[in-house]
Amino acid sequence: MELFNYYRSSASFRVRIALALKGLEYDYKPVHLAKNEQFNESYAAVSASRLVPLLRDGEAVITQSMAIIEYLDETHPEPPLLPKTALERAYVRGLAQDIACEIHPLNNLRVLRYLTRDLGLAEEAKDRWYRHWVETGLEVVEQRLGKEGHAGRFCFGDAPGLAECVLVPQIFNAQRFNCRLDHVPRLMQVFEACMQLDAFIKTQPSACPDAE
Amino acid sequence: MELFNYYRSSASFRVRIALALKGLEYDYKPVHLAKNEQFNESYAAVSASRLVPLLRDGEAVITQSMAIIEYLDETHPEPPLLPKTALERAYVRGLAQDIACEIHPLNNLRVLRYLTRDLGLAEEAKDRWYRHWVETGLEVVEQRLGKEGHAGRFCFGDAPGLAECVLVPQIFNAQRFNCRLDHVPRLMQVFEACMQLDAFIKTQPSACPDAE
Repeated sequence: MELFNYYRSSASFRVRIALALKGLEYDYKPVHLAKNEQFNESYAAVSASRLVPLLRDGEAVITQSMAIIEYLDETHPEPPLLPKTALERAYVRGLAQDIACEIHPLNNLRVLRYLTRDLGLAEEAKDRWYRHWVETGLEVVEQRLGKEGHAGRFCFGDAPGLAECVLVPQIFNAQRFNCRLDHVPRLMQVFEACMQLDAFIKTQPSACPDAE
Repeated sequence: MELFNYYRSSASFRVRIALALKGLEYDYKPVHLAKNEQFNESYAAVSASRLVPLLRDGEAVITQSMAIIEYLDETHPEPPLLPKTALERAYVRGLAQDIACEIHPLNNLRVLRYLTRDLGLAEEAKDRWYRHWVETGLEVVEQRLGKEGHAGRFCFGDAPGLAECVLVPQIFNAQRFNCRLDHVPRLMQVFEACMQLDAFIKTQPSACPDAE
């Protein structure tokens, strides 16, 4: 398998974690977003969106991080990244989507660029926007963890899965942009538990071959 | 089952379509977002995010539209809303996420409000923002449909599923905000095919009990 990704892309980081949790080997193909390498002809030939990550598995090309992770979980079931019952799976998918659909889309590079370059927003306003969605969005996940009562060491029980693949990169982003995190102690406990594990340590941005 | 939703919410519309495709009955519980009913105590008691849709199935509470749809597909498998192979499922989930993670989060009500009320953006700039993400985002989906070759009458083959549950509400939104759609003819063919079907006709915003 080949993973087209970028060390700082949190959607890429999600898939790196999933591959590591599954113990799967892959070729790391860097696409430098800040240098606009996603617009090179060679990448445009495989990617309609010019986004990362993109997984090539033989002839197959798979995009969208959560779709890639579910594909990996279906094709390499052990260890599972989703729980056993439909209701529990809905809970874990919902947590992942609370981040992947409500927080991260508002804060990725192309969106921040559009705010400043196309709409003329000042850096200070852009940073306020960033922190607003991270801080309020993570609070929702924190409340769910407290209320819905599935949490153990991780968001669901005692092993990391899809929810952690999405949560941990978002916490990295939050720290990089100096967001408040003292209001989400449960999430930070999960984060710390993850960062004890090789699958998270070895795939973090600073450990990537294209890290600067 | 009870579905907490709002006629104009496109994430709610996704779930209404899925329930209708499955032929499932439910109680329609309106939550008027424009009147801020999502912040009422009674709704806050069940919803950490104060977003719609929210499905109550017996004691269980499920949030996030794509997680709800996968839950419905797992608990009521016929007709299936996802294809049979892992790779095909990844394709359909990826299309749904191209919309649900790249277009819609940028354009929902709370985000548009933040742009104008908190960041002081003019209406004209807000509309430009809206159209930019819809028009460029749908173009990606159009390209994938042309390139990846699974399309029949619908995004994947000849029956609607998860991808159509997400696509059709996004096209409704695009039309409401006068977005260009002449550059996405394949998507519009799928849209027209869907709008021949009861599951889409009877769940569209104007057909909802809370429609204004």
